[in-house]
Amino acid sequence: MSFFISYPLMNVKLRPEKYLKYLYLPNLFATRRTKEILNVNPTLMPIREEAREIKVFVYDYDAEEFSEKESDNVLDTFAFKHSGRISWINIDGLRKTDIEQICEHYNVHPLLVEDILSMNQRPKMDEVEGVMFCLLNMLYYNEESQSVETEQISIVLGKDFVISFQEDASRDVFNPLRNKLRLAKSQIRQRPADYLMYSMLDLIVDNYFIVMEKLGDAIEFLEEEIVRRSNTRSLARVNQLRKELIVLKRNIAPVRDLISNIMRSESDLLEDRTTKYFKDVYDHIVQAYDLSENYRDIMVSMQDLYISNVNLKMNEVMKVMAIVTCLLAPATVIGGIFGMNFDKNVAFFHEPWGFISAIAAMLIIPIVMLWVFRKRGWF
Amino acid sequence: MSFFISYPLMNVKLRPEKYLKYLYLPNLFATRRTKEILNVNPTLMPIREEAREIKVFVYDYDAEEFSEKESDNVLDTFAFKHSGRISWINIDGLRKTDIEQICEHYNVHPLLVEDILSMNQRPKMDEVEGVMFCLLNMLYYNEESQSVETEQISIVLGKDFVISFQEDASRDVFNPLRNKLRLAKSQIRQRPADYLMYSMLDLIVDNYFIVMEKLGDAIEFLEEEIVRRSNTRSLARVNQLRKELIVLKRNIAPVRDLISNIMRSESDLLEDRTTKYFKDVYDHIVQAYDLSENYRDIMVSMQDLYISNVNLKMNEVMKVMAIVTCLLAPATVIGGIFGMNFDKNVAFFHEPWGFISAIAAMLIIPIVMLWVFRKRGWF
Amino acid sequence: MSFFISYPLMNVKLRPEKYLKYLYLPNLFATRRTKEILNVNPTLMPIREEAREIKVFVYDYDAEEFSEKESDNVLDTFAFKHSGRISWINIDGLRKTDIEQICEHYNVHPLLVEDILSMNQRPKMDEVEGVMFCLLNMLYYNEESQSVETEQISIVLGKDFVISFQEDASRDVFNPLRNKLRLAKSQIRQRPADYLMYSMLDLIVDNYFIVMEKLGDAIEFLEEEIVRRSNTRSLARVNQLRKELIVLKRNIAPVRDLISNIMRSESDLLEDRTTKYFKDVYDHIVQAYDLSENYRDIMVSMQDLYISNVNLKMNEVMKVMAIVTCLLAPATVIGGIFGMNFDKNVAFFHEPWGFISAIAAMLIIPIVMLWVFRKRGWF
Amino acid sequence: MSFFISYPLMNVKLRPEKYLKYLYLPNLFATRRTKEILNVNPTLMPIREEAREIKVFVYDYDAEEFSEKESDNVLDTFAFKHSGRISWINIDGLRKTDIEQICEHYNVHPLLVEDILSMNQRPKMDEVEGVMFCLLNMLYYNEESQSVETEQISIVLGKDFVISFQEDASRDVFNPLRNKLRLAKSQIRQRPADYLMYSMLDLIVDNYFIVMEKLGDAIEFLEEEIVRRSNTRSLARVNQLRKELIVLKRNIAPVRDLISNIMRSESDLLEDRTTKYFKDVYDHIVQAYDLSENYRDIMVSMQDLYISNVNLKMNEVMKVMAIVTCLLAPATVIGGIFGMNFDKNVAFFHEPWGFISAIAAMLIIPIVMLWVFRKRGWF
Amino acid sequence: MSFFISYPLMNVKLRPEKYLKYLYLPNLFATRRTKEILNVNPTLMPIREEAREIKVFVYDYDAEEFSEKESDNVLDTFAFKHSGRISWINIDGLRKTDIEQICEHYNVHPLLVEDILSMNQRPKMDEVEGVMFCLLNMLYYNEESQSVETEQISIVLGKDFVISFQEDASRDVFNPLRNKLRLAKSQIRQRPADYLMYSMLDLIVDNYFIVMEKLGDAIEFLEEEIVRRSNTRSLARVNQLRKELIVLKRNIAPVRDLISNIMRSESDLLEDRTTKYFKDVYDHIVQAYDLSENYRDIMVSMQDLYISNVNLKMNEVMKVMAIVTCLLAPATVIGGIFGMNFDKNVAFFHEPWGFISAIAAMLIIPIVMLWVFRKRGWF
Repeated sequence: MSFFISYPLMNVKLRPEKYLKYLYLPNLFATRRTKEILNVNPTLMPIREEAREIKVFVYDYDAEEFSEKESDNVLDTFAFKHSGRISWINIDGLRKTDIEQICEHYNVHPLLVEDILSMNQRPKMDEVEGVMFCLLNMLYYNEESQSVETEQISIVLGKDFVISFQEDASRDVFNPLRNKLRLAKSQIRQRPADYLMYSMLDLIVDNYFIVMEKLGDAIEFLEEEIVRRSNTRSLARVNQLRKELIVLKRNIAPVRDLISNIMRSESDLLEDRTTKYFKDVYDHIVQAYDLSENYRDIMVSMQDLYISNVNLKMNEVMKVMAIVTCLLAPATVIGGIFGMNFDKNVAFFHEPWGFISAIAAMLIIPIVMLWVFRKRGWF
Repeated sequence: MSFFISYPLMNVKLRPEKYLKYLYLPNLFATRRTKEILNVNPTLMPIREEAREIKVFVYDYDAEEFSEKESDNVLDTFAFKHSGRISWINIDGLRKTDIEQICEHYNVHPLLVEDILSMNQRPKMDEVEGVMFCLLNMLYYNEESQSVETEQISIVLGKDFVISFQEDASRDVFNPLRNKLRLAKSQIRQRPADYLMYSMLDLIVDNYFIVMEKLGDAIEFLEEEIVRRSNTRSLARVNQLRKELIVLKRNIAPVRDLISNIMRSESDLLEDRTTKYFKDVYDHIVQAYDLSENYRDIMVSMQDLYISNVNLKMNEVMKVMAIVTCLLAPATVIGGIFGMNFDKNVAFFHEPWGFISAIAAMLIIPIVMLWVFRKRGWF
Repeated sequence: MSFFISYPLMNVKLRPEKYLKYLYLPNLFATRRTKEILNVNPTLMPIREEAREIKVFVYDYDAEEFSEKESDNVLDTFAFKHSGRISWINIDGLRKTDIEQICEHYNVHPLLVEDILSMNQRPKMDEVEGVMFCLLNMLYYNEESQSVETEQISIVLGKDFVISFQEDASRDVFNPLRNKLRLAKSQIRQRPADYLMYSMLDLIVDNYFIVMEKLGDAIEFLEEEIVRRSNTRSLARVNQLRKELIVLKRNIAPVRDLISNIMRSESDLLEDRTTKYFKDVYDHIVQAYDLSENYRDIMVSMQDLYISNVNLKMNEVMKVMAIVTCLLAPATVIGGIFGMNFDKNVAFFHEPWGFISAIAAMLIIPIVMLWVFRKRGWF
Repeated sequence: MSFFISYPLMNVKLRPEKYLKYLYLPNLFATRRTKEILNVNPTLMPIREEAREIKVFVYDYDAEEFSEKESDNVLDTFAFKHSGRISWINIDGLRKTDIEQICEHYNVHPLLVEDILSMNQRPKMDEVEGVMFCLLNMLYYNEESQSVETEQISIVLGKDFVISFQEDASRDVFNPLRNKLRLAKSQIRQRPADYLMYSMLDLIVDNYFIVMEKLGDAIEFLEEEIVRRSNTRSLARVNQLRKELIVLKRNIAPVRDLISNIMRSESDLLEDRTTKYFKDVYDHIVQAYDLSENYRDIMVSMQDLYISNVNLKMNEVMKVMAIVTCLLAPATVIGGIFGMNFDKNVAFFHEPWGFISAIAAMLIIPIVMLWVFRKRGWF
Repeated sequence: MSFFISYPLMNVKLRPEKYLKYLYLPNLFATRRTKEILNVNPTLMPIREEAREIKVFVYDYDAEEFSEKESDNVLDTFAFKHSGRISWINIDGLRKTDIEQICEHYNVHPLLVEDILSMNQRPKMDEVEGVMFCLLNMLYYNEESQSVETEQISIVLGKDFVISFQEDASRDVFNPLRNKLRLAKSQIRQRPADYLMYSMLDLIVDNYFIVMEKLGDAIEFLEEEIVRRSNTRSLARVNQLRKELIVLKRNIAPVRDLISNIMRSESDLLEDRTTKYFKDVYDHIVQAYDLSENYRDIMVSMQDLYISNVNLKMNEVMKVMAIVTCLLAPATVIGGIFGMNFDKNVAFFHEPWGFISAIAAMLIIPIVMLWVFRKRGWF
C-alpha cells in the first residue's frame, strides 16, 4: 500500500473505486502528449513567444588572454569581431531582431537565421558560405510530468568565432564550458574555435545519457510495478513511456548524421587534429542510439510481461470459478435428487444413515475432483 | 454522453442496439476506401474526365518587370516563350489537346505529356532533353470523410520557363507564390526559374505537415476515445486511420528521392546557389517521413491499447461472474443439504436455531471468499 | 443470407452444421496451394510436358516494310536472319528440339536454352555472348480458383532480332504489340529491336497492375465479409490471400533488378535514347512493388480486424452468461433459503406476504445488478 | 483417427490420456534439437571422432584421357601432382594427419588445414597463397527425425587440381559428377579445374532445393493437420519446423556471399568464361534464399492459423456453456419459486394446471433465448 | 518435484502458496538487472574504484629470446621500450596515475588514456598518432546469477609493443597466450607485434562462443521447463534471458565493425600477411553475431510456446467447467421440476417408477452430452 505513496507522479493513492478510476483514466493516459509529439510542423512561422529580454555572454580568449562580458544587447558583441582572438557569443533567449542583427554583422546567411528562429526542426548540419551551422536539441527529463523536454540549440561556427543560440534563458547548458575557458591551462584555450564547437556538441551528447538514465529508472520502476501489481495505471505508463522513447529517438537519431557530416566535411574551419575528438562524440552518439534501441526492446518485453500478468490473473479467476463450480456440482445433483418430492415410496429417505451418506457424497466428490485437478497441475 | 455529439464525423449518437449496429458496421469500416487505396494502376489510359474548361495563368517577370495574364486558352501563352523574361505558366484542369499543344510549343518530350495526363503515378523526377520534370501529389485532408486526398501536380522546368499542371481548378495551391511574385523586392523576382520551382516544391512539402497535423489530431482524438470508451467504432477508426497513413506514406516517401535526385542533378537549369534551398526542402521531407514513422508507431501502440482495454473489460465481467458464482456456492450447497427430504429423522431440522445458523453460513462463507479474493488483488 | 450466394467462389451456401463444416475445412484452406508455392525447384530437369504443337509467328519489319508469317515449324524462321530488317520471332509452346534448333541458328548460348526450358526460375537478366536475355513471368489472375497463375516468358534480344518464348499457346500476351507493328506510323516501326523488347517488358509489367487490381478487389470483398460476418471461411480466405501475395511479390521483386540491370547495361544492343523508356518501366515496377507492400499492410490490418471481431463476439457471449448468471443468483439463493425444510418453526413461512416478498426480491435484485452493469458500460 | 497412423513420424497413435501426453511432451518438443542448434562453437578444437579409415578417390583427366584410382591412403595421390592433367582428389572421412600430409604436398596453407578440420563453421570462401578455398555444408533431410542434417564439405581449388574433403564416407555427394567425368564428350572434360569446382558447388546448391522440398512437404502436411485437428502436437511441430528453418537459413544465407565472392574474385584460377556458370549458381542460391523467406512467411501464417483454431474451439466451448447456462436459468428460477415451502397459503400450488404451466415456462423461455442468440449470429 | 532441486539458480523448492509467490516475484523478475542494462553512461567520469594494487606482466621476446617479468609498478616496464624486441605489457587493474605514466612513456595520446579509464564504452577501434587502439569487452557467464558479465579490455598496439589493460586482476584472460609465448617454436614468437594483438582478439572472440554456449544451455533448459510445466517462473526466466541477449548483442555487434576496421586499416603496424588471420577472427565474429540472431529467434518462438501452453491450460479448465456445467444441467432441471410443491395433484409423483426414471434421466442426458462433445473433438 505504501507502494503508491512513494511513487513520484501521484501523491494520492489510486483508489480502486470504478467511478473514480474512470475519472482518472484520461489523466493517466497522456493523450495531450500524443498531440505534442505528432503535431510537429517545422515549416510554419515559429509561434514561439519572443523573449522579453535576452542574455548575451561573450567570451573572448586565446591561449594567453581571456575576457568575458555579460550584456542584454547584441550590439555589445560587435566589437569582438575583430578582436583577433576567438570569441564565443552565447545568446539566451530568441528575439528576431537581435538574431538578424548579429547574423548580419557576422555574415551569417539569412537562411540560417530562419533555421535559428524555427521550431521543431529535425537536428541538422549545414555549411553555408563560410560558416558551419549545427541545429540540435538539448534534452531534459521533467521529473514532474515524467516526460522528455527539448530545448533547441543552434551553433554557428565561423572563422575565429562561435555563436550559440538557446531558447530558454533559465537553463544553463554550457556552464561547465565556461569554467574550463577561465582556466588558462585548459586545452580549450590552446585550440581554435572548432574545438569549442566540439566541446559544446560533446556536452549536449553527454547530456543525452543523463536523460536516458532517468528514463531507464522510470522503466525499471515500471517493470517492478508490473511485476508486483499490474493494473490499468501500468498500462498507461507503458503507453506514456513508449511516447517518450519516440521523442528520445527522434532527437538522437539525426544527431548521428549531423556528427558524421561534420567528420566528413572538408571545411577549412575544422583542423585535422580535431577530427579524432569528433570521432569520440560520434562513438558516444552511436552508443546512445544503440541504447535507445535497447530501451525499445525492454519496453516491448515489458508490455509482453504486462499482458502475461493480466492473463495469469484472469486464469486464476477462471480456476477459482472452476473449483467453485466443481464444489457446487455434487451438492446440486445430490440435493436435487433427494429434494424431489418422491419421498412417499422411496425407502432410502427414511433410513437414518441416508442424510449422513448424502452429506458425505457432497463432501467426498469435490475433494476427489480437486485432487485430480492438482494432479493435472492446475494449481 | 455528450462525448459523441462533439464528434465531427457523426452527428447522430451511436445507438447500442445490436441491429442498428450491424447496419452501421459496413459504414464504420470504410471498405470502399480499401478499394481506392489498392486499385491503383498507373499504366492505364487515364479515366479522368476531361476538364470542361481550363484556367491558364501566366506570370512573366524579371527583377524589374512583372506582368500577369489570365486566360482559358493555352494558345495565349505561346507569345511568352520569347519574352526574354521568366514565364510561369500555371494550368488548372487537364485537357489532352491543350497539354499536347503547349508541350509541343515549349519542346517538352511526348513521354512527359503522357506522365502529365496519367493518374495514380508514384512521385518521380525526370530529366528529358533539356527540361526537368517533377510529378508529385498535393495532399489535402478531407474533414468530412476524414481521409487524405491527393491532387497530382506536374512541374516542368525549362530554360526561362516553368509550366505547372494541376488537376483541380477549384483548389488554389500556389496562391502564396503569386503574391510573392507581385512584390518587386521579393527574392523570387531576383532569381532564375529554378528558384520558382524550388518555391513550388517547398510549398507542397510544407503542406504535407498541415495534413499530418490534421491526422495527428484525429489520432489524438481516437486515443482519447479508446481510453474513455473502447467500442467497435474505435476499432473501425483505427482501421481507417491505418489506411490513411498508407496513403500518406505512399505520397511522402518517393518525394524524398525526388528532391534528392534534383540535388544531385548536374543540369544546367539549376544554379549552384539554389542547392542550399533544395537542401532545406530535403530536410523537411526527411522530417515528414520520420514523422510518418512516428505516426505508425503511435498507431501500433494505440491498437495495443484498444486490445488491452477490451481485455480489461472482459476481465471485469469474468470477475463479476466469479463473485456471483461464489455467492451462489454456499446458498446452493446449504440449501441443497437442508432442502433434502430427510427431515423425519434428522433432529437438527427441528431446532429453532437451525434456520438461523444455515442463513448465517450462507452469508459468512461468501464474505470470507470475497475477503480472500481482495487479498489476492482481484478487485 | 443472400450474401453467400453472390460469392464467386462458392455456389453452395455454407451450412453452419458442424460436420459439414469439418468436411469443408480442408477445401477452404488451400493446403495444396502451399505445396505449389513451396515446392519450387529451378534446378531440376523441367517436368513440363512437351508441347504437342507449337505456333511460330514471325514479324519482319522496318520503317517502310512489314511482313508477317505464321507457321508450326521453327525452320521457317531461319530465312529471316539475314533479311536486313528487324525480325520478331514469337514461339508459343516449348519443345526442346525446336528451341535448340532456333537458338543454334541465331547463335544463342546453350546455357540460355536451358534457362528457356527451365521451370520455376526467379526472374533474371543475362548478357551472354552478344545477346541479351530476359526471363520473367506473365501473371494471370484465375477468377475460378482465385489464385495468381504464372506463365514463363523468355525474351532474347540480338542484333536485329528478338525471339520470345511463351509456355502456353492458348494465351495471347503480346497481341496489342502485333497491332502496333502493323501500323506503319507507329513508333515501334521507326526504332531498332531494343524498342521492341522494351514494349514487351512494358506490356508484361502493365499486366501486373491488372492482377493486383483483381487481388485488391478480393481483399476489399474479404474485408467487407469480415466486417459483416467473421467466420472460419474468412480466416481461410485471409490465409489464402496471404499465399497469393507471396506469389505476387516473388514475381515482382526480382523484375525490379532485372529492369535496373538493363538500364545499367552498356550493351551495344541498347540505344541511348531507349533508356528513358526503360526508366518508365522501372518507375512502374517500383510502384508495383510498393503497392504489393501496401497489400501486405492491409492484409495484416485485416487479420487484426478478424481477430478483434472474433473476440468481440466472444465477449458478447461472456456478457450474456454474466447477465444470466446474475439473474440466477437471487433466485437460487432465495429459493435455497425458503426451500429448506425448516418450515415447522419459522413463522415467516406462514405469513401470506412471505411468498410475494420472496418473489419480489428475486425480481428486484437482478434488475439492480443489470442497472449497475449498464452504468459500468458493459452493454 | 486413421489420420495419425499415416503420419510418418509416429507409428503409435497419440493417446488423449493426459498422463501419457505429459510423458510424450518432451519428446514432441525437441528441446535437445535446440541445444544442437544453439551450441555452435567453431573456435573449439573439433571434437569430431577421427575417421577410422578414409576413402581416397583420384580422377585424373583431360579432354583425351581419364584415369581413376581408389585408395585408403593419401600418399597414393602424390604422384598426380605433376601428371600435367587435371586431378580431382576426393577424400571421404577426415583424419588430421592425412589432411596435413596432402595439404603440405599440394602447398595448401596450414590455416586452411585448420578450417578443413573445424566443425560448425559458417560457409565461407578464402583465397590464400595461390589456392581458392570454399567451405560449405551439404544438407540432407533426415526423414526419420524430420530434421535438416549437415555435412561439411571443403573444396580446395589449385592450379590443375581440386581437392575435396567430406566428413561422412557413407554419403556419396559427388556421384553424378563422377559419371560425367567418365564421359569423354562431357563439357567438364574440356574445361580446366575451375569448371570442376563450379560443378561441385552447383551440385551442392541444387541439393538445397531437394531439402527445401522435403521441408515444404512437411509444412504442407502440418498445415493440413492444423486445419483438421489442432492439438498440442501441431504446436510441437510448428516449434520444430521453425528450428529447422533456422538451420536451413543459417546454411544458405552465407553461401550467397561465398558465390558472389568467387564471381568478384580476380584470381588466375578462374577463367572468364566460367563466370557465367557461377552466375547461374548465384541465381539459384538467391532463389533458394528467397524461398526460405517464403517458408518463414508461411510458417508465421500457419502459427496464426493454429492460434485462431485453438481460439475458435475455445469459443465453441464457451457458446455451449452459454446455451446450457440459459437452459438452466428458467428451470432454476421457476423450480426455486415453486420449491419454496410457502404452499400452505398460496392458492396457485393447488391448481391442477399449475404444474403444467410451470413446466411450459421452463421449456419456452430457453427456446426463445436460443432463437435470439441465433439471430445474433452466435451459432 | 525433484525437477526444481536440480535447478542451478534456486536451491529451495518453489512453493505454490500464493503469498510466498508474491514475495518471490520481484526476485524472480530481475528488475535490478534492467537498471544495470539501461543505465549506461560512457560519458561520465568512471566511478570504478581505483585498484588497490595492480599487477604488471612484461613479456619481452623475439624469435630467439624470451624474458618475462612480474611487477606491481609500471615504472619497471619503461626499460623495455628500447629493448629492440617485442614487448607485451599486460596490466591487471586500472589506476589512473599508472596508466597516465605508461601512456606518456610510450607516446600514447591522452584521449586514449581517457578511453582506457572509461566505463561502459561501446567496443571501438581507433588509430591515433602512430598507435592502434582497441577497446572491447571480455564476456563471462556468471553461473550463480545466470547473467552475462563484462570486463573491459583495452589493447594498444605500437611499433614493437602491445600494452593491454584489464579491469579485473582476479581473472586471467590471456593465460593461454603466455604459454604460447614461452615456446620458442610457436608462431607468435616469429611474428611482429600485430600478430600478438591478433592472438588477443582471437582469444576474446573465441570466448564469446563459450558464453553463448552457456546461454544456449540456459535456453534449452528453459524450453524444457516451459514444455513440462509453464509457470510464472518460466515467464520470469524468459524475461531475464531476453535481457542477457541484449547484453550479448550489445557487446558482439560493434566488435564486427572493430575487426572490419582493422582489416581495412592501412596502418604500417599491420603486416599484409596478418590480414588473413584477422579475416579468420572476422569470420568468427560474424558467425557469433548470426548465432545471437538465432538465439533471439528461438527466444521468440519460446515465448510463443509459453503463451500457447498457458492458453492450453486455460482451455482445459474451460472444458472441465463446460463438462461439469453439462452434468449439472439435467440434475438441476429435473430436480427443479420434481422439487416443486405440486405433489398433491400430480399423479406421477406417487408412482413407484417415478423416482427411478428421474434419476435415469439425470444420468443419461449428461452421458449423451459428453458423447457429443467428444465427437466434436473437444477432449
